[in-house]
Amino acid sequence: MKNKMITSRDVDFARWYTDIVRNANLADYSSVKGCLILEPRGYAIWEKIQNILDKEFKRLGHVNVSMPLFINESLLQKENDHIEGFAPEVAWVTHGGSKELEERLCVRPTSEALFGDYYSKKVKSYRDLPMLYNQWCSVVRWEKETRPFLRAREFLWQEGHTVHASADEAISETHQMLEVYKRFIEDYMAIPVITGLKTESEKFAGAEFTLSVEALMYDGVSLQSGTSHYFGQKFAKAFDIKFSNDKNEQEYAYQTSWGVSIRLIGGLIMVHGDDNGLILPPNIAPIQVVIVPIKEEIYSYADELSDELSKAGITSFVDKTDKSPGFKFAEHEMNGIPIRIELGKKEIESNEFVVARRDTREKMKITKNDKFVEEISNLMSDIQNNMYKKAYDRNMSRTYTCTSLEEVKEIMETKPGYIKTMWCGDPKCEETMKEIRGLKSRCIPEKQEKISDECICCGKKAKHMLYWGIQY
Amino acid sequence: MKNKMITSRDVDFARWYTDIVRNANLADYSSVKGCLILEPRGYAIWEKIQNILDKEFKRLGHVNVSMPLFINESLLQKENDHIEGFAPEVAWVTHGGSKELEERLCVRPTSEALFGDYYSKKVKSYRDLPMLYNQWCSVVRWEKETRPFLRAREFLWQEGHTVHASADEAISETHQMLEVYKRFIEDYMAIPVITGLKTESEKFAGAEFTLSVEALMYDGVSLQSGTSHYFGQKFAKAFDIKFSNDKNEQEYAYQTSWGVSIRLIGGLIMVHGDDNGLILPPNIAPIQVVIVPIKEEIYSYADELSDELSKAGITSFVDKTDKSPGFKFAEHEMNGIPIRIELGKKEIESNEFVVARRDTREKMKITKNDKFVEEISNLMSDIQNNMYKKAYDRNMSRTYTCTSLEEVKEIMETKPGYIKTMWCGDPKCEETMKEIRGLKSRCIPEKQEKISDECICCGKKAKHMLYWGIQY
Repeated sequence: MKNKMITSRDVDFARWYTDIVRNANLADYSSVKGCLILEPRGYAIWEKIQNILDKEFKRLGHVNVSMPLFINESLLQKENDHIEGFAPEVAWVTHGGSKELEERLCVRPTSEALFGDYYSKKVKSYRDLPMLYNQWCSVVRWEKETRPFLRAREFLWQEGHTVHASADEAISETHQMLEVYKRFIEDYMAIPVITGLKTESEKFAGAEFTLSVEALMYDGVSLQSGTSHYFGQKFAKAFDIKFSNDKNEQEYAYQTSWGVSIRLIGGLIMVHGDDNGLILPPNIAPIQVVIVPIKEEIYSYADELSDELSKAGITSFVDKTDKSPGFKFAEHEMNGIPIRIELGKKEIESNEFVVARRDTREKMKITKNDKFVEEISNLMSDIQNNMYKKAYDRNMSRTYTCTSLEEVKEIMETKPGYIKTMWCGDPKCEETMKEIRGLKSRCIPEKQEKISDECICCGKKAKHMLYWGIQY
Repeated sequence: MKNKMITSRDVDFARWYTDIVRNANLADYSSVKGCLILEPRGYAIWEKIQNILDKEFKRLGHVNVSMPLFINESLLQKENDHIEGFAPEVAWVTHGGSKELEERLCVRPTSEALFGDYYSKKVKSYRDLPMLYNQWCSVVRWEKETRPFLRAREFLWQEGHTVHASADEAISETHQMLEVYKRFIEDYMAIPVITGLKTESEKFAGAEFTLSVEALMYDGVSLQSGTSHYFGQKFAKAFDIKFSNDKNEQEYAYQTSWGVSIRLIGGLIMVHGDDNGLILPPNIAPIQVVIVPIKEEIYSYADELSDELSKAGITSFVDKTDKSPGFKFAEHEMNGIPIRIELGKKEIESNEFVVARRDTREKMKITKNDKFVEEISNLMSDIQNNMYKKAYDRNMSRTYTCTSLEEVKEIMETKPGYIKTMWCGDPKCEETMKEIRGLKSRCIPEKQEKISDECICCGKKAKHMLYWGIQY
């Protein structure tokens, strides 16, 4: 039995995805090409992501700031690799009111240049360091093809930018923030990830190295879900960020930047959703429990139940609309609410409620006694763990260890996923792999396994074990 | 005794203001002309404002969304008054990457057009209504002259946009949101305000009417601090937002919009600050208490004290930097932290702490016993009330009732403030008043007093009692 409003996930995954986005009222297209409207249900998930991550950033000593939306063309051009990476995809403001600007401004595609410029004025002594700044904002990249949450001309994100007095400290910040992302995505979003180093060709424009969190979607396609970059002194040299160190010598500062975006919401949909709609893990669901009273006369009973849950920190909502119970059930399933409690007169009299969990769609009876709230809370943990495990098992079954290009081709044509191979380190071999359905290196994981001695492409001596995958 | 780093407030108010902004590290100028960088201390105040207002918006049933940053030129032009009001001051994006766009896009100066377009697709039946949406974002207006927080080419704000099935309901939303702003500004920011209706010449471009919250700064200049607009069916007709009403007839919807911005932070500075820096009311201060331990050996004692305050919901911070106590005291005064606790070994032994309140700069001794936290909490209430009262009394002493233009001129040359007069309702008389140092109508308060029968300008029959003032 599936919801008739949406395409089946196994029939047309791309259409299924947009059907969920639209039918769960997460987002809508705007009249402005390539720009998305985040509707209340979609934005509420983003708010939840923001709240959890923001607390963690602050606990680790970061503070929020707000940088301008615009970057002077000359400022953007200060770091060569950076401008080469971003110039082809920025939006340019050329007029203010009816006047042409003397220098055109780009709408920030990312804010390294703005933070660089700011830090060059602020950083003077090692005593000022570290400076651990973050901002929640939107950025603009003039993409040709767009997909809700995954790729858009404007998208919401956070970007952390830090300055340190030593390379060691900056490198450990880069790793720490990757770990923050990994923990968040696994523990809250119930999405198992792999993490590691990006290859030279895949790293951020201007970075010394980029660490990445990668997640595998239901269709076997990878989603780069968060990145953390170490800049070394590259931006500091370009923007002249110097400090006097503890030996009273002038030294260029060491920097990092790191970010996640609303594409995480795309990941949630594509890892957990099914043919009945979205499925939200309880730890990230804006509404964790929906209570559906079948008759108006039990609304007040439903409200009391909702209050009880709320006292235990469980977010619930009583659906008092005049739709039919069946319609409501389908709607809440579409919206991915983890738990539904069905309340009829009979249930109240018998003190036994029907509780439906969204992930497995199982229904069970729970007795309304002193332990009721605790049982709901346990059920939430169970759903959270089950969702993680299901995604983890799927990832395992779609992670392949290969030693020949033929094997890779066959897998990618039948049941794509992560491909683990050895690699010599030559970007040319990445180009060779790209010919197989656009395979790209995902990351070089920290924990290396030795599959063989030779690069899968050229047969030369291998340097790394690498994950490959096609990507969103 | 005043802080030597800043200009005296009574010598040069404008310079004093920017000195505070810079020395309290609230904001900095960026390399992008007219665009501000909100630094951690400034942004923390904005976060506090956001948290409090966002909770209140949600309590009243509003939800957050995110609309695009850009508006197609043709979309902006749909409502005539609106485009006339905003077109001269928008920034235009003409190129994406290296390509010229087919239709140029403006960076949103406000989002009525985007919400209008969205609602035209979404609103179908009276059952869909009301739709109570809000967004926290930044907007761009190509101002020629800018001042930190008060006027900038880009500024942070929130904009609520609601759609209703009846004029009555929309009008009452317009009033309700004005009241939310008034309560927030008075109760949290300790800024007494006047509220009322904007005249036809001062209302928002495209509104049926605009309600406004006005605050008086230390220098007698007015700050429009929040506005709430009733659109009637104007935008609904321009954007074709129709719904089938309960008689199953098609009807144009009724709309409102309302907003406050970071200019509220400018208001905080200009109402409460003094020659030693910023003074933050405890209810809006990101840090309410700073604890300054004089010696390193009492750091752990200071931390325990901070924990105790934190348990009572009081935000405190222990200053462990290696600066001198005198330097620290001046710095925390500059930053406007409401309460400072000075901790020395002697104080710990005697169980009597020196506590300094920022508003009056009085020092007092408070015994460290069971009631200590309660006493700090009471002191915070006292500071909050005292700050409000001080500003209120100043407003009263600078609110003048006038019946002749000569009186007005004299006041405006000596000690400007609010001018209360009668007015005939003719915009020409507003033009006459403008000749007196740029006086503008502030608002027509709900509670009318009858000062005389005649308009102060033309002597014709008066229609309203009006507040006038010069403005930021």
